[in-house]
Amino acid sequence: MEVQMDKIRAYIDAHKDEYLSLLQKFLRQPSISTTNTGMREMADLVEETLRNMGFEVEEIPTNGYPIVYGFLKGEGDRTLMFYNHYDVQPVDPIDEWDVDPFSGTIKDGMIISRGTADNKGQMLSRLMAIDAYQKVYGKPPMNIKVVYEGEEEVGSPHLAGFPKLYPDKVAADGVVWEGGGRDTGGPAHITLGVKGLAYVELRVRTANIDAHSSNSPIWKNAAWRLVWALNTLKNERDEILIDGFYDDVAALTDSDMAFLNSIPYDEKTVLERMEMDGFVNDVTGVELLKKLLYTPTCNICGIKSGYIEQGSKTVLPAYAAAKLDFRLVPNMTRERVVDLLRKHLDKHGFTDVEIVSMPGAPAYRTNPDNPLVQAAIAASEETYHIPPAIYPNSSGTMGVYHFCHDTGLPCVMYGVANEFSQVHAPNENIYVEDFILGIKMTASVIDKFSKA
Amino acid sequence: MEVQMDKIRAYIDAHKDEYLSLLQKFLRQPSISTTNTGMREMADLVEETLRNMGFEVEEIPTNGYPIVYGFLKGEGDRTLMFYNHYDVQPVDPIDEWDVDPFSGTIKDGMIISRGTADNKGQMLSRLMAIDAYQKVYGKPPMNIKVVYEGEEEVGSPHLAGFPKLYPDKVAADGVVWEGGGRDTGGPAHITLGVKGLAYVELRVRTANIDAHSSNSPIWKNAAWRLVWALNTLKNERDEILIDGFYDDVAALTDSDMAFLNSIPYDEKTVLERMEMDGFVNDVTGVELLKKLLYTPTCNICGIKSGYIEQGSKTVLPAYAAAKLDFRLVPNMTRERVVDLLRKHLDKHGFTDVEIVSMPGAPAYRTNPDNPLVQAAIAASEETYHIPPAIYPNSSGTMGVYHFCHDTGLPCVMYGVANEFSQVHAPNENIYVEDFILGIKMTASVIDKFSKA
Repeated sequence: MEVQMDKIRAYIDAHKDEYLSLLQKFLRQPSISTTNTGMREMADLVEETLRNMGFEVEEIPTNGYPIVYGFLKGEGDRTLMFYNHYDVQPVDPIDEWDVDPFSGTIKDGMIISRGTADNKGQMLSRLMAIDAYQKVYGKPPMNIKVVYEGEEEVGSPHLAGFPKLYPDKVAADGVVWEGGGRDTGGPAHITLGVKGLAYVELRVRTANIDAHSSNSPIWKNAAWRLVWALNTLKNERDEILIDGFYDDVAALTDSDMAFLNSIPYDEKTVLERMEMDGFVNDVTGVELLKKLLYTPTCNICGIKSGYIEQGSKTVLPAYAAAKLDFRLVPNMTRERVVDLLRKHLDKHGFTDVEIVSMPGAPAYRTNPDNPLVQAAIAASEETYHIPPAIYPNSSGTMGVYHFCHDTGLPCVMYGVANEFSQVHAPNENIYVEDFILGIKMTASVIDKFSKA
Repeated sequence: MEVQMDKIRAYIDAHKDEYLSLLQKFLRQPSISTTNTGMREMADLVEETLRNMGFEVEEIPTNGYPIVYGFLKGEGDRTLMFYNHYDVQPVDPIDEWDVDPFSGTIKDGMIISRGTADNKGQMLSRLMAIDAYQKVYGKPPMNIKVVYEGEEEVGSPHLAGFPKLYPDKVAADGVVWEGGGRDTGGPAHITLGVKGLAYVELRVRTANIDAHSSNSPIWKNAAWRLVWALNTLKNERDEILIDGFYDDVAALTDSDMAFLNSIPYDEKTVLERMEMDGFVNDVTGVELLKKLLYTPTCNICGIKSGYIEQGSKTVLPAYAAAKLDFRLVPNMTRERVVDLLRKHLDKHGFTDVEIVSMPGAPAYRTNPDNPLVQAAIAASEETYHIPPAIYPNSSGTMGVYHFCHDTGLPCVMYGVANEFSQVHAPNENIYVEDFILGIKMTASVIDKFSKA
């Protein structure tokens, strides 16, 4: 099959209204997993759309909403998988919407509705690229698998088990994950992985009940114990002091550093918008991005002890707790972090500090030399006419690790949103132009990947 | 007037039932300041009782409940003042009372009712000592003033202003404060002062809103800032690290140390009851008491930041706050402590930590050589037949400083309660025997003080 991308792009432009209509149809079908609103109807619509395109469709039951799985035979043996989700966030606060959130409104070059950016616009931009291939050349140049989850907005409780339960269904040569976007007037983002996560709660109990603070010279204070314990974990220069914490961190390569030059970060706007007086350690420029993307963290998510309401109460707290998250870079594991934390606390005399470990995840990064990554980079240049911003990993953590870390699948993330897409908020939107460009982008990714 | 204490004690024993009846009458009159239950009736009953004894009675209005002031002319120019309060705590949880809380029940050698220990039993034991004097010798050997507050259980909002507004009414040669007690089978307690109090809230804001914790490598975390700031204030050996904090603390004298030998502290029972694994710095014996009574403190009453409910939330808190109390020993002032704290935080780079100062009080200690103290010690030995436990100051803080620190009045505290008196709790009680001994104790205090 000798594909000419120009023909496909021309087809996409010619059928822009048809693709927008289908997106509107998807947007007009509510699918709020939190409240079980329209979930059955949405799964039916997704399945019908896939079947109309010639996909073999299977509904994989879970204890919650089903996963919609589809397979489309293309040329050759290569297989590309797309992960998206068909559920959306609730619409509250409804009063702050300028349009009916399930109207599929197109206005001022924008598509405004719940789910445009997260995740129906992303899902359909990819599916319509395949449609364009079929219409122009009969079929895509590789096999296509889609995995459409119905529980992403409620924490993906059943996604982790999917690759283990259905190894044949996740067998592929690469996966395009949920979504992404580009900064207004800036490059498109391509993200190749995620940081991992270890999440713990630290608890200290010094007595069975709070006491009058007049006892504080001689009775132990749980809040002080926790403050002292926490202080041993990280210093004011943001250096994590847990013995061995950094041991597993791989040294940065020249290419790791080179990626940073592609990434825009508007420091001034961030500081102004957040009313912050500066960044940690006053980092700036490439050093800021290096720290943001490549360093593991030890973050206090919350801390509480004793009395902290209005006015004064002279109390000696018997109990204190803090929640910490550790973002992990490749090679680190949550098990090892929790183990090192326990050893550290013991070594510093904090055997009284209990660690309660919560769900987490390992980090994952696709090798930038992987053909799928190279295809995505080339496709982005072709589609957007400027080089993409390449994030070797995001600063956060996503469900992608269940697929990629556990299966070893290469993964890329890119998409149709922008920094003002109001994801999870009123007036969620994407640009019409970005939706159409997103279709062309995926068509180009498939083209380049088929040739790599 | 040649007083024979034996005659007075015999009179007290002979009129035990009469005195108990009057106490029951007081206990049967509810007087809950929190809910304004029976407060007017209680003030009337107190005033009627005083007038029947020959006191000149004046009701001092406040913006809340009035202070009942009484003056009784005795022999000579010396004047002894008694401070007590006629209000009581609410009775909740009512289901946990074994008797009607306003029944004045006498059972198994105990008087069980709301207010027996706090403070009607204390008040009447003192008043009945004066009654016995009058009945046996016509009048007491010195002038008597009583100041009966109606707002002690709601924080004494108008007591601080009283000495300044009515200097003539607080003119005296000494004051017997609210109350006290003795340990079961142990010595009576005589307390000569209180620690002072400085109370502050520390607040840190690093941004205008909480953020996703993926930003934690480069965005400042208010919880961490607060933990690091707190950690600079005190170390794990309980040493307060604020420059100059200990400068004003007077060196302990031989007599300060000698007092400690008189004080019982059942370490084992305390540890067991509170389920504590030991005391701060493993202090024990005299060192424990020295630390409890003579050292200033820096105590975390409460701390809060970010998310600390169920489960995990990956958040970067923009705001954190902690409440601290500092118990102060003589010569320290809250103004100076707050000033030193500000300088300390600035010096350590925590200019971003705001200090909000809340109401506090200076410390106060009566000189143990004062004739009133010596009279109380001698009276306690005479009444209880064992030497008293002498607390140069309590480990806590009370309203007494408004009278004693501001006026320079010598002050003693002693009384009719015990460690199981259930103050502020269901089944509040005192022993009948302690009430009668309390009457004898005050009679003896008056006798000894008149001769000093």
